[in-house]
Amino acid sequence: MDLLKAIRTIPNFPKEGIEFFDITSVLKDPEAFKETIDRMYEALKDKDIDVIAALEARGFVFAAPLALKMGKSLALIRKKGKLPGETISASYSLEYGSAEIEMHTDSVEKGQNVVLIDDLLATGGTVNAAMELVEKSGGNTVACAFLIELLGLGGRELLEKKCSEIISLVTAKENI
Amino acid sequence: MDLLKAIRTIPNFPKEGIEFFDITSVLKDPEAFKETIDRMYEALKDKDIDVIAALEARGFVFAAPLALKMGKSLALIRKKGKLPGETISASYSLEYGSAEIEMHTDSVEKGQNVVLIDDLLATGGTVNAAMELVEKSGGNTVACAFLIELLGLGGRELLEKKCSEIISLVTAKENI
Repeated sequence: MDLLKAIRTIPNFPKEGIEFFDITSVLKDPEAFKETIDRMYEALKDKDIDVIAALEARGFVFAAPLALKMGKSLALIRKKGKLPGETISASYSLEYGSAEIEMHTDSVEKGQNVVLIDDLLATGGTVNAAMELVEKSGGNTVACAFLIELLGLGGRELLEKKCSEIISLVTAKENI
Repeated sequence: MDLLKAIRTIPNFPKEGIEFFDITSVLKDPEAFKETIDRMYEALKDKDIDVIAALEARGFVFAAPLALKMGKSLALIRKKGKLPGETISASYSLEYGSAEIEMHTDSVEKGQNVVLIDDLLATGGTVNAAMELVEKSGGNTVACAFLIELLGLGGRELLEKKCSEIISLVTAKENI
């Protein structure tokens, strides 16, 4: 199955001139969603992994079934103020200003191997901040996995500085 | 397994005097998470269901594995402005003011049977608004399922006006 065809694009979202890759069309199609999870599982199943970490919010949708299928612990990485327990935080740049993400201090233990999961890799800013959270907890990010990677935005290059395994099931050029 | 024991409580979140039921402790424990999904699946497997609808954000974590296991379409119900396609919206009351949730217009087709999934049932305001979205799409909410239901807040009573099957795996009294 060509998963790229299963991802619809929406013009001018979130703003004029941007073509948004909308993964909800994959979720709507049980076969496409199953293939996505199966292929992520195949790419990760032989690795020594302790924790699957999910980036809010679309990352939750892919990370949860993977964690279950692999029998691993699932950690949530959320926007500031959403997690109730003791947290660590990291900031990342937005087009204007910056934002923070957080993870519970007990989500990743010292020495644990972590995979970061999100739906889409663009500039990689959020995932890079998520790697900082894993580092602060004493863990190792052993892989980052995405359904779709947008080429030409420097995301892979940024993440590869800290993590040797960047997995994307399909790639696309951002149509601007 | 006593799933209630797997849910930790955090005092004074999101504000002083509230004891928050934190389901991240369930996600951290692969056995507890698997049992949660297995029990939701058992409760739903014999029903005539077309769509599993997930309430942002913690609902995503339970609805995604369920949709996969049942081979059903997964629909996301999100806070206003997050979904890129054409949406319908419904509002619900907050302690001060109100907020809106949205669903893509093509998530639920006329006549389809929908299950709404979230982590916790308290007053039921958000889920009630989600039922409105399903109604507006011409679908039927045939069940609502939660990991935990807080008793004494009127949530079940509210939802039962529109949906005959309210499923919760465990119940607790809110400790205020």
